[in-house]
Amino acid sequence: MPVCQVTVVPLGTGTPSLSAYVADCQRVLARYADLSFQLTPMATVIEGDLNRILEVVKEMHEVPFRRGVHRVSTTLVIDDRRDKPLTMQGKVDSVEEKLAGKE
Amino acid sequence: MPVCQVTVVPLGTGTPSLSAYVADCQRVLARYADLSFQLTPMATVIEGDLNRILEVVKEMHEVPFRRGVHRVSTTLVIDDRRDKPLTMQGKVDSVEEKLAGKE
Amino acid sequence: MPVCQVTVVPLGTGTPSLSAYVADCQRVLARYADLSFQLTPMATVIEGDLNRILEVVKEMHEVPFRRGVHRVSTTLVIDDRRDKPLTMQGKVDSVEEKLAGKE
Amino acid sequence: MPVCQVTVVPLGTGTPSLSAYVADCQRVLARYADLSFQLTPMATVIEGDLNRILEVVKEMHEVPFRRGVHRVSTTLVIDDRRDKPLTMQGKVDSVEEKLAGKE
Repeated sequence: MPVCQVTVVPLGTGTPSLSAYVADCQRVLARYADLSFQLTPMATVIEGDLNRILEVVKEMHEVPFRRGVHRVSTTLVIDDRRDKPLTMQGKVDSVEEKLAGKE
Repeated sequence: MPVCQVTVVPLGTGTPSLSAYVADCQRVLARYADLSFQLTPMATVIEGDLNRILEVVKEMHEVPFRRGVHRVSTTLVIDDRRDKPLTMQGKVDSVEEKLAGKE
Repeated sequence: MPVCQVTVVPLGTGTPSLSAYVADCQRVLARYADLSFQLTPMATVIEGDLNRILEVVKEMHEVPFRRGVHRVSTTLVIDDRRDKPLTMQGKVDSVEEKLAGKE
Repeated sequence: MPVCQVTVVPLGTGTPSLSAYVADCQRVLARYADLSFQLTPMATVIEGDLNRILEVVKEMHEVPFRRGVHRVSTTLVIDDRRDKPLTMQGKVDSVEEKLAGKE
């Protein structure tokens, strides 16, 4: 199962504040009980089935349009590894083990 | 209809050359007759229906796995404007008009 | 010498049209005679010395602020290969040779 | 002061595991006492002066080359807001206030 990163950016909003749009996107995500997600200062990280992630990304992409915005720029990064399980926590743990170790 | 940008990057290939993977991705795209696309030095730009673009991106994302790669990083940027038509050519023309004009 | 891709996106502009900002960024780039660049429908591709590219990207990032915008999102992708020369044209040619050939 | 996101991806490594490279990049970052940073499952988020961030990104970009890799793809996103202070923590707090509130 891939780990993905998504940002949904409304353009031409008239205000530089984006947090209301991000909060609405988080509300959409919270309805997908089969996906794990995590908000970072720059993006939202999602773990789960790729088809379901594409579904939720399409729904998140609609959020600013529903609030009256006319242009939206959405970026999705898919990190997909198939020789061993990939998880949000496992990716960070793996780096921290290296940092704690000698390598 | 949105204009999108996609890159499919195979990881751990053993060789820094990626063009064979990119060529295979272009072959996948060429089978989608309802989508227009354009190769740039850094990405592929696609114009068309968003559901169809997500379909082809999923298929392009599988290309390196079919060639034996174990990890793939795919990035998709969706530029979606709904107050007026957006096209690959129109976006570039619009900038070039500004450059040719006085503004 | 790396090949890079840059997008400078003004946020909160009040209008979804971005071409005036993109045109101004192109004018900045045109003053860097030692860099080659190419406008695509989704980004600007630049070829040249990395330090010079970082310099021009910093200057392009200032363009919307100078036009009164309060928030700017700039994305830079650096593709840097050191076992053989990398050029904008060479990258596209390499894919097209694969497409024309049998591989 | 901008909040930035960086990923440094080594290509052609022969193994799909990247955590050793990411750990080395974190070690580079840790030497920049004037920058705050945070590892996410998909990227590293950095807060601080833009010139210093560009300096550390250049140094992080060199990490895989020093380990013998021949091609590196580095992505930097700069989120720069100048009408009010922007911080990693403040960005997340602002979304969480919206989620806790009534809007």
